[in-house]
Amino acid sequence: MKKRFLFTFAMLGLSSMLFSQTWIWYPGDYELWLGNRMNNRRTERGAFFPPFWKTDSHYVVVEFSKAIELEKPEVIHLAVEGKYNVKIDGKLQFGMPGTIRLEAGRHQLNIKVWNQVSPPALFVNGETVKSDSSWKVTFEDKEWIDESGKASDTSATLYESAGRWNFDSEDSRPSQFTLPRELKQPAGCEKRGNGLLYDFGKETFGYLVLNGISGEGSIGIYYGESPEEALDKEACETLDFLRVEADKVVDLSTRSEQPKGASYTMENSKAFRYVYVEAEAGVEPGNATMLFEYLPVEQRGTFRCNDEELNRIWEIGSYTMFLTTREFFIDGIKRDRWVWSGDAIQSYLMNYYLFFEQDAVERTIWLLRGKDPVTSHVNTIMDYTFYWFLSIYDYYMYAGDKQFVRQIYPRMKSLMEFVLGRTNEEGMVEGLAGDWVFVDWADGYLDKKGELAFEQVLFCKSLETMSLCARLAEDDEAATIYEALAADLRSKLNPCFWDEQKQALVHNRVDGRPSETVTRYANIFALLYGYLDEKQGEQIKNSVLLNDEILGITTPYMRFYELEALCYLGEQERVMKEMKSYWGGMLRENATTFWEKYNPQQQGTEHLAMYNRPYGKSLCHAWGASPIYLLGKYFLGVTPAAPGYEEFTVRPCLGGLKWMEGTVPMADGEIQVYMDKKKIRVEATKGKGYVYFDSRRKPKANIGTIEKLSDGSYRLPVSAGEKVEIQY
Amino acid sequence: MKKRFLFTFAMLGLSSMLFSQTWIWYPGDYELWLGNRMNNRRTERGAFFPPFWKTDSHYVVVEFSKAIELEKPEVIHLAVEGKYNVKIDGKLQFGMPGTIRLEAGRHQLNIKVWNQVSPPALFVNGETVKSDSSWKVTFEDKEWIDESGKASDTSATLYESAGRWNFDSEDSRPSQFTLPRELKQPAGCEKRGNGLLYDFGKETFGYLVLNGISGEGSIGIYYGESPEEALDKEACETLDFLRVEADKVVDLSTRSEQPKGASYTMENSKAFRYVYVEAEAGVEPGNATMLFEYLPVEQRGTFRCNDEELNRIWEIGSYTMFLTTREFFIDGIKRDRWVWSGDAIQSYLMNYYLFFEQDAVERTIWLLRGKDPVTSHVNTIMDYTFYWFLSIYDYYMYAGDKQFVRQIYPRMKSLMEFVLGRTNEEGMVEGLAGDWVFVDWADGYLDKKGELAFEQVLFCKSLETMSLCARLAEDDEAATIYEALAADLRSKLNPCFWDEQKQALVHNRVDGRPSETVTRYANIFALLYGYLDEKQGEQIKNSVLLNDEILGITTPYMRFYELEALCYLGEQERVMKEMKSYWGGMLRENATTFWEKYNPQQQGTEHLAMYNRPYGKSLCHAWGASPIYLLGKYFLGVTPAAPGYEEFTVRPCLGGLKWMEGTVPMADGEIQVYMDKKKIRVEATKGKGYVYFDSRRKPKANIGTIEKLSDGSYRLPVSAGEKVEIQY
Repeated sequence: MKKRFLFTFAMLGLSSMLFSQTWIWYPGDYELWLGNRMNNRRTERGAFFPPFWKTDSHYVVVEFSKAIELEKPEVIHLAVEGKYNVKIDGKLQFGMPGTIRLEAGRHQLNIKVWNQVSPPALFVNGETVKSDSSWKVTFEDKEWIDESGKASDTSATLYESAGRWNFDSEDSRPSQFTLPRELKQPAGCEKRGNGLLYDFGKETFGYLVLNGISGEGSIGIYYGESPEEALDKEACETLDFLRVEADKVVDLSTRSEQPKGASYTMENSKAFRYVYVEAEAGVEPGNATMLFEYLPVEQRGTFRCNDEELNRIWEIGSYTMFLTTREFFIDGIKRDRWVWSGDAIQSYLMNYYLFFEQDAVERTIWLLRGKDPVTSHVNTIMDYTFYWFLSIYDYYMYAGDKQFVRQIYPRMKSLMEFVLGRTNEEGMVEGLAGDWVFVDWADGYLDKKGELAFEQVLFCKSLETMSLCARLAEDDEAATIYEALAADLRSKLNPCFWDEQKQALVHNRVDGRPSETVTRYANIFALLYGYLDEKQGEQIKNSVLLNDEILGITTPYMRFYELEALCYLGEQERVMKEMKSYWGGMLRENATTFWEKYNPQQQGTEHLAMYNRPYGKSLCHAWGASPIYLLGKYFLGVTPAAPGYEEFTVRPCLGGLKWMEGTVPMADGEIQVYMDKKKIRVEATKGKGYVYFDSRRKPKANIGTIEKLSDGSYRLPVSAGEKVEIQY
Repeated sequence: MKKRFLFTFAMLGLSSMLFSQTWIWYPGDYELWLGNRMNNRRTERGAFFPPFWKTDSHYVVVEFSKAIELEKPEVIHLAVEGKYNVKIDGKLQFGMPGTIRLEAGRHQLNIKVWNQVSPPALFVNGETVKSDSSWKVTFEDKEWIDESGKASDTSATLYESAGRWNFDSEDSRPSQFTLPRELKQPAGCEKRGNGLLYDFGKETFGYLVLNGISGEGSIGIYYGESPEEALDKEACETLDFLRVEADKVVDLSTRSEQPKGASYTMENSKAFRYVYVEAEAGVEPGNATMLFEYLPVEQRGTFRCNDEELNRIWEIGSYTMFLTTREFFIDGIKRDRWVWSGDAIQSYLMNYYLFFEQDAVERTIWLLRGKDPVTSHVNTIMDYTFYWFLSIYDYYMYAGDKQFVRQIYPRMKSLMEFVLGRTNEEGMVEGLAGDWVFVDWADGYLDKKGELAFEQVLFCKSLETMSLCARLAEDDEAATIYEALAADLRSKLNPCFWDEQKQALVHNRVDGRPSETVTRYANIFALLYGYLDEKQGEQIKNSVLLNDEILGITTPYMRFYELEALCYLGEQERVMKEMKSYWGGMLRENATTFWEKYNPQQQGTEHLAMYNRPYGKSLCHAWGASPIYLLGKYFLGVTPAAPGYEEFTVRPCLGGLKWMEGTVPMADGEIQVYMDKKKIRVEATKGKGYVYFDSRRKPKANIGTIEKLSDGSYRLPVSAGEKVEIQY
């Protein structure tokens, strides 16, 4: 897998070097439109299943513009998705010209496009005039003509820099985009009952193909992430029913028809490892293959160590991420296939240690936010709104894309207005009508009433994020307000929720009374965001994190943060054991991807059930892959210390391993780390930073000067291109 | 014309009686979508010309729902525009079922539809279960499933009553709607230059048809509201260029093709009386006919009097309104063909005295408003925002549709929030960046700086309207706020703008200093809204309205209000002379419809020019038809005194005529009025009210008791069904 994607990636890179022109649109609009197609592909036993939150869409009329200066006359070619007009220097041209000749000199080009069906999009190709993100775009130009016939531009509208992806040729029309597909054969097939059970060897995603349908009658196709699911016709989560007629095949769910040919490819993709195909008498379904569908991404991050089980965990995590990193970062490939903010923020963080796929991060952030007016929390979930804010500053730190922050900032601001409009007298958030307070799927009662400590911590961090992003967007007035709000809320967290006797933040406060319950959530986040002092951090380690009497976490989703908190406290050895036990546990259950939820107490088919449905659980869930993040950030120990890794920190930690090595990607470079019990090697292709480490003896380095820090640890400066080796 | 539309109307009425089920959608959404098609049909010399304000669109995913109770099992049929699912009692059904069997008992039906292309729409037909406006619809159901598998509905969302029109059969799919068309022959044709000039006898609208194209080559088609325009190939406002090839005909503007057949119908409609068709050698264009396109409306209002010129003015006004009353009330049929709020409010008012077409009023109000967030004034024009508010209460008074007010109220509220967010320290509005302060097209300088008196008067009336509508929507808290804001602003109007020396409101105030200029606008509106006392009213009559030194009005648009003001002051005789002079003047220029602007000082082709273009003026402009309104309201004298004409006022006034008679329609009835110099006859089919009149002698009535009022005039009560005759 890795090599092929390397190749594809290189080709894409080459093509965008050769041809700088690309299809452009109103920023965020293509992302919403594509997201609607993604989110609306969910099915449940043959029924269409769209999201239950507001679905926004693209602006149907937009105007693209560009001021240009030509040294000599130039003929430019236009391709447009939509009905359009062209103005050159304010003069409307006849019809919808595909070719325009521009004379030498300065010109103003305005191209206005209407498209209800898909986002208005433009492709301009000339010797020097090319559509790219330097073009401006607006949904409301406010140009008007007064009685004198003079066109005036009141310029009140914010002209945005055009959005783009990688549609760099005229033929790669944005509305026609599909992910690439590749034919795959089943690994095995056996007769079961009246049908055939196919096994594709591991969890996969795509379109089942029946080759050589003949006769007439009905065919049932039952998908399973497990053989039990595929064979359970009454309860499997996804299925297809076909009716084969004399000359055509009808999909009974959508009632659409295809002519009866050599092979029949299902209309909609599914996630599965097993497929059970059963046909009634009189019809022969032929044999099954599948078209694997994927986003071409390069696996740029790597991890290897002496522990083969851990290596396998990393590989399975990587494959889980590969399957769930698609047009967008989705939750899981079988059931929802939706974009969820709480899931996505973890995917982004894993992605920074694996693919460093930036476009998918930006697309997912646009889609999750949608458009104004804000009428509910992101995905309707209060906590998911907060993760959405946080994810933007994360992205800025890892990728350094200030332009993206500035473009999304107005939507951050209006979402925060929505949140601030729903705070109580204390300036805290509570679940109001319509708000889903999620926290986590828990095997036990979770009180969601009143002021949840966990939500206040996320809210406080969101306000801090807003102030940082407001500064980046040069909205200093708002930044000051957000800073004050954050400081005020932060000052209340300990007084309101810290219980000195329990040595922990309590779960919530109802009518001003703190509850008696302690849960992990608020304590974990308060620790990670630096809201607890060092003493409190040590206290919660024992009173909460390592305390079995506190309600345990059974989703990899919240384990992500729980284990991160332990790493943050220097407990890598314990985390290593937890990873081998928890993720290793799934491997021992023959997982080929990681699951939505895993409770080691359960047995057999209990592992498949969730939401009161026998196969409700997703067995390939992005949030299952957190070791990718933990190993990159807390074992290889690489983090950006300044936006875009201009500065970085490498704090490697073996956590009980004998040796490890790996690569952490940056937007335009990488950092390689090797560590064993005696030496550390670090090499970065860009930026500069420090390697932090402990040593029982006086350490030595091949380059540079090691500095001893006040806490007894050491650091060594590293610059791009240096091959640093530390003996410690 | 009249009879045919009567027939069509009766048929439509019948069909909606026989079949109560109808296509439904999210309220306002179909209206926006259809409006986008309408507004985007504008062309300028073969170039597509969309509006320059934000174009909103439909919600792409909506859910329809209905709680039903069945006495016996029932099979219902569904037709849906979009991809959909069906839940019965919360249980998702397989596929997209076209037929559902429901058992006896209570049921909850939920149908969720996704459609990017056109508004999600639903048609349900069963014996008792039928889609209609009693169904609920939401764009955000917020239903979610917790871990127990239980679906919960948090019910935070406002479920709206479904929108509908008259698509009452399964086959009349909303997305396929087009207005009816009818073949028309030209009235004449003559050879001019290398081509033929067709004359269709009067202003018309539709699709030119060329019958019998042969050969190969280019054809130019030049449209004119005047022969000068049609013959001016370089400057006519609209045109079509065709390229005829061996087997097809290409429209050179859109590049779309049709096979070469017996006849070729142009893709897009045009407004014209004259068409000049010129073909190059080698191609024979054949002869031209046209498909007249119209909204089937009944001309329910009538007016006849002894003055044939006035009768002709009324007829031409009626035809002007017939041409501009289409999917929406548009400004003019030639050039913009857009929906403009200032134009529309006048169209609605004329419509109440002519067609009483309610659906078009509602559609136009929805379209003008668009969706949240509000980013600019309606049509970008500040005054047009205010007219939009006012038009809603007008509609309520004439049609009595409280449900519509309640549905549109949230959008009124958010638009008013936008306005209030842009007021200055005095609570007054000024044109800010992006605001177009229009007022009127004037043949002279109009200062648009600072606080325009005219805008404050409209703003004040808008605040009063908001308080009335807030009460109807049971938003009493907001009503109180709007009342206070209106009272505050009203208390400032006279102190800030009344100039005792000039006996008039001055035009504006800049930096707190009232200007020296007096214009008509503020004085007219302040008078009509009752913001001037009786003494001020008499003062402005002479100091402004009848004062030739004040900048004159040259558009029928502002003459609408100017003449209304004179009628309001009892100057019907003067208004009659003005109508005969001004609108009669257009007739003497051979108008077959009324114009966008008319300046009696101009001559010949000067009348055709506007916006610095020789044929820029629209010769069929809705706002040209104001005599329809003036004659109905101030001569026949019929107005609603309570919403929906539950109570009415008839205050007939001959204004110099010998006799007049006419009919004023209501939603579900009509009032007939006859008056000559000796008697008044009134008959209403519903409601009750008073006839107000003056009499030099003691008046007599055939029914009821005449009451003498304190000002010396009389009134007589009238009830539905009574044929009242007054001798006066």
